[in-house]
Amino acid sequence: MATTNRRITLSRRPKGAVTEDLFKIEEAPMPDLRDGEVLVKTTYLSIDPTIRGWLERDTYLPAIEIGAVVRSSGVGEVVASRNKEFSPGDRVFAMVGWQEYSVHGPDSRLRGIPPGVSPTDALGVLGLNGTTAYFGLLDVGRPKAGETVVVSGAAGATGSVAGQIAKLEGCRVIGIAGSDAKCAWLTDEAGFDGAINYKTEDVGARLTETCPEGIDVFFDNVGGPILDEVLARLALRARVVLCGAISQYNRMDDVYAPRNYMNLVMRRARMEGFLVLDYFDRLPQAVMKLAGWVAEGKIKHRTTVVDGLENTVSAFQRLFSGDHEGKLVVRVARSDAPTS
Amino acid sequence: MATTNRRITLSRRPKGAVTEDLFKIEEAPMPDLRDGEVLVKTTYLSIDPTIRGWLERDTYLPAIEIGAVVRSSGVGEVVASRNKEFSPGDRVFAMVGWQEYSVHGPDSRLRGIPPGVSPTDALGVLGLNGTTAYFGLLDVGRPKAGETVVVSGAAGATGSVAGQIAKLEGCRVIGIAGSDAKCAWLTDEAGFDGAINYKTEDVGARLTETCPEGIDVFFDNVGGPILDEVLARLALRARVVLCGAISQYNRMDDVYAPRNYMNLVMRRARMEGFLVLDYFDRLPQAVMKLAGWVAEGKIKHRTTVVDGLENTVSAFQRLFSGDHEGKLVVRVARSDAPTS
Repeated sequence: MATTNRRITLSRRPKGAVTEDLFKIEEAPMPDLRDGEVLVKTTYLSIDPTIRGWLERDTYLPAIEIGAVVRSSGVGEVVASRNKEFSPGDRVFAMVGWQEYSVHGPDSRLRGIPPGVSPTDALGVLGLNGTTAYFGLLDVGRPKAGETVVVSGAAGATGSVAGQIAKLEGCRVIGIAGSDAKCAWLTDEAGFDGAINYKTEDVGARLTETCPEGIDVFFDNVGGPILDEVLARLALRARVVLCGAISQYNRMDDVYAPRNYMNLVMRRARMEGFLVLDYFDRLPQAVMKLAGWVAEGKIKHRTTVVDGLENTVSAFQRLFSGDHEGKLVVRVARSDAPTS
Repeated sequence: MATTNRRITLSRRPKGAVTEDLFKIEEAPMPDLRDGEVLVKTTYLSIDPTIRGWLERDTYLPAIEIGAVVRSSGVGEVVASRNKEFSPGDRVFAMVGWQEYSVHGPDSRLRGIPPGVSPTDALGVLGLNGTTAYFGLLDVGRPKAGETVVVSGAAGATGSVAGQIAKLEGCRVIGIAGSDAKCAWLTDEAGFDGAINYKTEDVGARLTETCPEGIDVFFDNVGGPILDEVLARLALRARVVLCGAISQYNRMDDVYAPRNYMNLVMRRARMEGFLVLDYFDRLPQAVMKLAGWVAEGKIKHRTTVVDGLENTVSAFQRLFSGDHEGKLVVRVARSDAPTS
């Protein structure tokens, strides 16, 4: 077994775009285990927009400390255990961080991955992306059959699931994405009723065209001018579900603020934020539901795999350029444990 | 009886501040009544921020047409009637417009004013201001005892009632207003726990000081930078009730947009607009409740009366400078009908 742990630490905080020089890749000694602890070998890292916030400032979690390993969820395999709930070979989901090995105490949120679930599905469609889409759309957005739902970041890991759940609820669903290929996937594979390429089309005009009765539910992953165009076209009693604002995370000192927010009054509408961490008690039921839909072919999803811990920062940068399809993960090591 | 009707019509739409030259004061012949119609002599006009929207653009109601009498609610007295539900001498609330006489058909929302209610109370604390405060605070804001409630435009006709209802619900209430005299009235007379003069104090610093646990409910009449300061200080699961944005109505082409809106995600908070016109079915019960509180001295209110239809535009301008106390009305004529 390895005696050192390769890891990526934060050297300084980003202002604007994330660059390689903010981080240091280093070797540390393999940690020792104390009573109750578990050593996990990382197999896949989940590359998530929310990490951008943690790099710069306190958000719903404290900022990552300078010199510390970058916080990240991921999946891995137990390689040593002094906790009787976990044994070597167990596959687990955990906050593993950008590193090869991590130690988890009895209070950490280490969770086993059920047999038959692949590591990338455990991170994406059946992980925090799928459950974020599930609770955000259903609990916050509360779509009703026949309503018009718009999703931004619609080809992404969360947006694509949110839109497909809206379809299952009987809604008309329009997705906004960043390439013709992504738009084609939304309409041809994922069953969306329409798709708008925000890089080449006039989003406002296309929303007017595709949502003639206005927008009842907006599931927003993007923020910025797209949010403003939607606010201008809300239906009466619309719900704007604030999931994220990836267009703004690299410009938090000069945020594009939604000047059409006053339309919330005119349309008696609601804009509401949420975090999936508030729904942890209900995760199992959501995962069960999502797993059923995936198994029945009712929810399609894609994964982009980047190989090698050393490519984590460049993978993270791709989140912001949109140069990936669906769930973006880094494969840190191949698993020795069976999937099922 | 008079044979002409003095009235104020809209000549052109405002861009920015409202000026006298947008309007024309003119004499028109006294209208004839058709079957089912009622002729009302205006006694008081309600001077409301929402009229600013109607002057410029379609909002929740169509824009006032060029050449038409300015739309406005008010109270008056029936002087002639061809409708058996109304008789000369009846005191009524109606969309009377900026004019001395108005005609109301069977479909208009002409409502009698109960005995004992003064015309200015019928417009303010027991009228659209009081009921706006009632439904906005209780239905949209849903304050719980012990929570911290902040009200902007707190010394105004709507804000002052919202804050006092929050006190009756057992909340800590901080008001934001535009003069030391208004702030003193809030804390000394209206029972607010604190007041901030936004013209002389650092609103953000004072909010931090007076709301150490964050803000649970914000009842916003003002918008702009004050809204942003509140968004930066939301408690978990906060509710921002969008009632109005008077700081922005004169600059709709260059709105100050709330850049801290993303804190709605961090705090899992909700920002929601409403209009009292959606609650018309429940108005009677709200008015009853408000009347009880006023009679018991639990809701204090003030009125600023401007005399003369010809002073309506300058009265309207005072809404935006804040140079008035509580409910602002124009007395167009003295009533011949008894109050009770």
